[in-house]
Amino acid sequence: MMMRIAVVEDGQSPTTRGVATALGIPYSHAAKVVTRLQHLGVLEARRGRGGGLALTEAGRHGSVGQLVRALEGAGEVVGCEGEPCSLRSVCRLRTALGAAQDAFYTSLDPHTIDDFVSGPTGPLLLSLSL
Amino acid sequence: MMMRIAVVEDGQSPTTRGVATALGIPYSHAAKVVTRLQHLGVLEARRGRGGGLALTEAGRHGSVGQLVRALEGAGEVVGCEGEPCSLRSVCRLRTALGAAQDAFYTSLDPHTIDDFVSGPTGPLLLSLSL
Repeated sequence: MMMRIAVVEDGQSPTTRGVATALGIPYSHAAKVVTRLQHLGVLEARRGRGGGLALTEAGRHGSVGQLVRALEGAGEVVGCEGEPCSLRSVCRLRTALGAAQDAFYTSLDPHTIDDFVSGPTGPLLLSLSL
Repeated sequence: MMMRIAVVEDGQSPTTRGVATALGIPYSHAAKVVTRLQHLGVLEARRGRGGGLALTEAGRHGSVGQLVRALEGAGEVVGCEGEPCSLRSVCRLRTALGAAQDAFYTSLDPHTIDDFVSGPTGPLLLSLSL
């Protein structure tokens, strides 16, 4: 969704409904995502002519790794607390999985949404009409 | 499951049912996991006295990263093909997620099941009676 909004052309005013249609996702789901992204400060809804959904500076140039961390929250790969496991206080597997999860996010850290829509991806995104 | 089986003591003959009970998972699920792990060559069912489920050498000392890769198959973090996405051929996000997934597995590569059951984890595993 952020990638499609990132390539909005002058004069377009993307709406949640338009983006949902372009990406083939239910409107209700898109609306929840928009609200979440607004709360995270990476998306805003501008009023008036040429308004509509737009990425903030943080949304366009911020780290994708940080964004994914924020979206995933403090969740772990395996939910050791949900169904409490008696090993959890001393579990080496849990520690290793935590490190692996960090490695996943760290690998995404250098990327920005702006990077993702450069090259051939941008024109293809534009073909998904709002 | 492999961690519990790794610390089996002399004279114990762990069964799928016993391990399922110890770990609080349904027998039918445990049986599927046992079959899967046998196919991967990391678990075997030995016959006779002192038999039962046991890790193979590869199971005990092989790389956990390789094992998780094998269990997860060629699946991607986001299923770009399942609901085919028109960006998939040129998607930089997909490439970045693939690299992040690799980083996750690579982080687990140096670990073995044997490492995970050393230290204080081992005795706690033994307290989960078979």
